[in-house]
Amino acid sequence: MSEKEFSLTKLNKPQQWTNLADMAKKHVPIIEAPEKVKAKEHFTVKIKVGGIDGVEHPNTLGHWINWVQLFAGDRLISKVDFAPEMCNGYLVTLNVTLNETATLKAREFCNLHGVWEGKERKIIVE
Amino acid sequence: MSEKEFSLTKLNKPQQWTNLADMAKKHVPIIEAPEKVKAKEHFTVKIKVGGIDGVEHPNTLGHWINWVQLFAGDRLISKVDFAPEMCNGYLVTLNVTLNETATLKAREFCNLHGVWEGKERKIIVE
Amino acid sequence: MSEKEFSLTKLNKPQQWTNLADMAKKHVPIIEAPEKVKAKEHFTVKIKVGGIDGVEHPNTLGHWINWVQLFAGDRLISKVDFAPEMCNGYLVTLNVTLNETATLKAREFCNLHGVWEGKERKIIVE
Amino acid sequence: MSEKEFSLTKLNKPQQWTNLADMAKKHVPIIEAPEKVKAKEHFTVKIKVGGIDGVEHPNTLGHWINWVQLFAGDRLISKVDFAPEMCNGYLVTLNVTLNETATLKAREFCNLHGVWEGKERKIIVE
Repeated sequence: MSEKEFSLTKLNKPQQWTNLADMAKKHVPIIEAPEKVKAKEHFTVKIKVGGIDGVEHPNTLGHWINWVQLFAGDRLISKVDFAPEMCNGYLVTLNVTLNETATLKAREFCNLHGVWEGKERKIIVE
Repeated sequence: MSEKEFSLTKLNKPQQWTNLADMAKKHVPIIEAPEKVKAKEHFTVKIKVGGIDGVEHPNTLGHWINWVQLFAGDRLISKVDFAPEMCNGYLVTLNVTLNETATLKAREFCNLHGVWEGKERKIIVE
Repeated sequence: MSEKEFSLTKLNKPQQWTNLADMAKKHVPIIEAPEKVKAKEHFTVKIKVGGIDGVEHPNTLGHWINWVQLFAGDRLISKVDFAPEMCNGYLVTLNVTLNETATLKAREFCNLHGVWEGKERKIIVE
Repeated sequence: MSEKEFSLTKLNKPQQWTNLADMAKKHVPIIEAPEKVKAKEHFTVKIKVGGIDGVEHPNTLGHWINWVQLFAGDRLISKVDFAPEMCNGYLVTLNVTLNETATLKAREFCNLHGVWEGKERKIIVE
């Protein structure tokens, strides 16, 4: 995948996770969460956009990560909007509550390079 | 301030911080941030909605904290949308970057009790 | 499909369009747009949520249409947030611009009954 | 007011409405609404961003109107997000419902030139 390989009209999602292109390293959101949680007790989810192998996404008035979304299955848990220039590092931590086992996924939107999705994370609710 | 004292059409903001009514304890967003930071280096801001003296806000399909906004002066830094039932505890942590000394403020919207603002926090940029 | 038939965790989308249940009539967004447009010239898209056969969705502080999204293929064109009680009828008109033939779809979120999608509309760009 | 006169950290609002600079003509949102309405019956509000004297705002991936907000007094009625390149002309029409006489105001955010507010419009509810 070269620097040019992105789509403004389709979801961008790496097919393999070895040898990621810089374009992907900058854009893909990474979810950090526990593997097992208790039903209806909140736990911490961290979402970091880009920064894989230290390749951070720019943050200027004309080119930035506009928002991040976190889903449990198809259900939107949260959307976080960023103003340009104000949120370097693009790291968000949220409280999340689940009733049953679900798969978390995160998406982000870059105004120049479209919507990106990273690896899903299954959370087992005990 | 009694339980009834809130407005759907005006900003709700406690005038004094001793003897807060439960209505305020549930709704007011509290900002946690360092007093001094370095220009253009990101730092961590924590926003907790409600929970003052342990009085937490409900989180049901018909009554929840819909969103939180963080401002530096008049500039919106971030808006975080919550889906009902999914984010108990309403705690958000964000990376923030400032170029110059600014005053942070946070607002939240509860669908039944309107928009609430808490204490401002001045951040000195060195 | 009975009144109970909806999901909070999956996309709700009618499988057939005759004999819609009231639940669907209230929630499904309907797109009105021209069949053919010119590239890069804006045209009008109307999105009406619910109201099919006159079955309108409620609009109270605890139960309302929270937002509508309009997509061209997978690309989000616009998201419109509604405050509770303020937007009876849930009708939005937008300018849209396309570069190439695309399929419009609309989704809405009701805080009690989840995300609903209606009929897609193909727009031919000449 | 010259092309340079805008702020990213303060609200931009013209002080006088004769001899508007192009910067203002491009950014200021204009509200179109009836002067008198009936309580709890919805009416149509049109919001046009820019285009005063034909001076339209650009709409490119790196420079566009990111969103428009409509308020009744301090209460947010609706926020409309635009994706870059998709909504030339920036015209939105909404249904609005009021219980009592209120003053409408509209704000928009341009990623390069900040938040702009236009003329308020008083709506008398009979």
